Amino acid sequence: MKKIQEDALFVIEKLKEEKYDKINEMFTTKKPYDLAFIFQNLPEKHRASMLEHLNEASIASMLPKFNQLKQLELLGKIGPARANKVLALLDTDILSSLLRHFPKADLDRFLSEINDTEAQYLKQMMSYERDTAGSMMTNRYLSVQLEDTVAAAVEKARVHAMYSETLFIIYVLDKNNRLAGTVSYRDLVIAQPDDLVKDIMLKQIISVPYTAKRAEINKLLKRYDFSAIPVLDDQERLLGVITFDDMMQIVIQEANEDIGKLSAVNKEIDFDTKPVTAAKRRLPWLIALLFIGLVSGSIIAGFEDTLEKVVALAFFMPLIAGMTGNTGTQSLAVVVRGLAEQDINPKVVTRLIFREFRVSLIIGVTCGLLISLIAFIWQGNMHLGIVVGSSLLLTLILGTLAGTIVPLVLYKFNLDPAVASGPLITTINDIFSLVVYFSIASFFLSKLV
Amino acid sequence: MKKIQEDALFVIEKLKEEKYDKINEMFTTKKPYDLAFIFQNLPEKHRASMLEHLNEASIASMLPKFNQLKQLELLGKIGPARANKVLALLDTDILSSLLRHFPKADLDRFLSEINDTEAQYLKQMMSYERDTAGSMMTNRYLSVQLEDTVAAAVEKARVHAMYSETLFIIYVLDKNNRLAGTVSYRDLVIAQPDDLVKDIMLKQIISVPYTAKRAEINKLLKRYDFSAIPVLDDQERLLGVITFDDMMQIVIQEANEDIGKLSAVNKEIDFDTKPVTAAKRRLPWLIALLFIGLVSGSIIAGFEDTLEKVVALAFFMPLIAGMTGNTGTQSLAVVVRGLAEQDINPKVVTRLIFREFRVSLIIGVTCGLLISLIAFIWQGNMHLGIVVGSSLLLTLILGTLAGTIVPLVLYKFNLDPAVASGPLITTINDIFSLVVYFSIASFFLSKLV
Repeated sequence: MKKIQEDALFVIEKLKEEKYDKINEMFTTKKPYDLAFIFQNLPEKHRASMLEHLNEASIASMLPKFNQLKQLELLGKIGPARANKVLALLDTDILSSLLRHFPKADLDRFLSEINDTEAQYLKQMMSYERDTAGSMMTNRYLSVQLEDTVAAAVEKARVHAMYSETLFIIYVLDKNNRLAGTVSYRDLVIAQPDDLVKDIMLKQIISVPYTAKRAEINKLLKRYDFSAIPVLDDQERLLGVITFDDMMQIVIQEANEDIGKLSAVNKEIDFDTKPVTAAKRRLPWLIALLFIGLVSGSIIAGFEDTLEKVVALAFFMPLIAGMTGNTGTQSLAVVVRGLAEQDINPKVVTRLIFREFRVSLIIGVTCGLLISLIAFIWQGNMHLGIVVGSSLLLTLILGTLAGTIVPLVLYKFNLDPAVASGPLITTINDIFSLVVYFSIASFFLSKLV
Repeated sequence: MKKIQEDALFVIEKLKEEKYDKINEMFTTKKPYDLAFIFQNLPEKHRASMLEHLNEASIASMLPKFNQLKQLELLGKIGPARANKVLALLDTDILSSLLRHFPKADLDRFLSEINDTEAQYLKQMMSYERDTAGSMMTNRYLSVQLEDTVAAAVEKARVHAMYSETLFIIYVLDKNNRLAGTVSYRDLVIAQPDDLVKDIMLKQIISVPYTAKRAEINKLLKRYDFSAIPVLDDQERLLGVITFDDMMQIVIQEANEDIGKLSAVNKEIDFDTKPVTAAKRRLPWLIALLFIGLVSGSIIAGFEDTLEKVVALAFFMPLIAGMTGNTGTQSLAVVVRGLAEQDINPKVVTRLIFREFRVSLIIGVTCGLLISLIAFIWQGNMHLGIVVGSSLLLTLILGTLAGTIVPLVLYKFNLDPAVASGPLITTINDIFSLVVYFSIASFFLSKLV
């Protein structure tokens, strides 16, 4: 990091000396993330003058490291003419998702300036749904024909190498452009020049339809070792390729989404999100949970008499509710994580539920005994100990099962299991636990007073 | 999936017909994950006889897809002789971490059977700490010398291609084997045969020391687009390479760990973990949280008089405590996620805390007003409404800040921010909220009764 601070100072210096070429020169030697980081660490006024003097290549290389809002902002600042130059240097995957935010006029102007095939490809990508394979692919891949010889393939590779993002995998197409197999450049290198591609190619290909959602792709990525995924249309024709860096992004984004959902942060909130926006994204859940919370309130109200007679019962309310929520959250995490990795069948599900049940028994008995003892010692009332302990035992079992079954049910109905956020499970379990606790308490009431 | 069920049936059939070659044949056409999945879906007895007749190549290809416990179990079942054959087919990264679990005798026997360079390399890897770069690397990379010509490099590539996992990146070493740069195979292909490697190589390399922890590598992966990361020793010499399938694993495991920690599941628990093990891994947290929960209990006990006079106060306890926990969890997720992606400096931190503060204001005022109104209508007591509302406003602010600051502090002290699990934050916030709530209530007591 120190290094980057120095770079930032260097840039400021050069800006003051108006030695802009020095900056562009330095930028060619840096990685996109560092460029973006340096740029962001500059004071506002320097950023403006820097954008003015950076060449398009430098801007294009750092642009993908900003979030989309920022990207659009930057492009806006440098004006349409230069913006188009920058855009022309971006990969189709980043470009197409960026263009979705363009006003029709600007979009058309840009598309009219680039070559037709590229423009066509971008239009096609934009016609696909966001976060589907079709919207994430690139056309910078290398393909050869079934009947090509290894020598011919190598030559094609040589010629197209500079455009290809995926030289190490070459896609083999039949005469209808259907994907027939793949050869790695490695295979070509160790093959004989006059071998036919179709004889050395790998026929087992895992591909995705252009309609595949990010979550589905994520699942594949967790199972198979890809270096790139081919994207096919309805006729099995090769549309494009999802490259390694995009695959990495898919895994990262899916993980972030899960963490977000598990914590009831529906939409992405990062350090740069504006307060109002962040609040808007968090409030819906909180308000929903507030009303669910009222339910637990009315339950307690229902047991007002019991509570009035034995106020000490209130002492253990948060503990019992809390513990139940916690064990539920734990099970939830285990299930959500598991579902993201493997397919399930009735056998797996029953085994899992039964497993969690046994876990809850162990946890319940341990914590139950512990709290009975504590309650007894603290309040000197054995029956209170029994009430609290047996309640905790019961609620821990219920809570664990809720945390296990709720996400499984959501999954069963093709809903994302992670929307059963920790807070939701916690709040549901509050209700469970209070009902159990006060029912048991009321039952033993005579003993408690 | 249906496909895989069919495959499983096919295997069973062939097993019955004792046509084992057919199974091995079919296995060569399948991806490792599918092999493992088919195998796991077989009834126990078939699994045994299958292991008996699968050739080592087939076993080796599916082995990495099982968790380590299962891997060791499988190897145990096929006996030392065949096990060694299988092991010899694995990549060093999987192999070395597997060998860590071997009894000394078995380990030595295996190492004595493979060639010395490989054995040395494995010993070296095992000498490195688990989950560090040195323990995840592979020696299957391609390197050339600074002074080599492109032609010579291409030839080396041709010869070593079949052993290299990373043909598409070639590492350029100086005469002391220090990493001087990289050339992609693409670069070689488009260069002139008599160019010198050192003139076309890329000099900006991002590498990691062999001591780098998984979390650090994960951070790099989220910033830069690698296809492989070189691992260096203290003298900057190239020790090995982390390949992209391992990089993908790193990102996945780190994400899982975060989700796990956020839900207070310290160690990895998957669908196959035994109940007792799972319980053991979950209990420490729960017991800790139980004792923290007792604190909130004693707080309520401290306000017993207040509570006795106005039992209605108890109705809103779970709601206030719950909401505070929820907003805390939300902030926690935002911070943990953010910290995993970017570096922070005092400026970023203050901006973030201030942002969260403003968020909490918006959330607090909204929910506060809402609940006051509800409390007033429900209990027909305006002062109760004020007490509940103002408490919620205050606790939501406190809870949000706790969820923001706690992980930041942990991070500051080089602790993993994600250990501030949702449950922990929730329980801490329980305490906050109860103190605030009952203090305010006691203050307004005269008005409430």
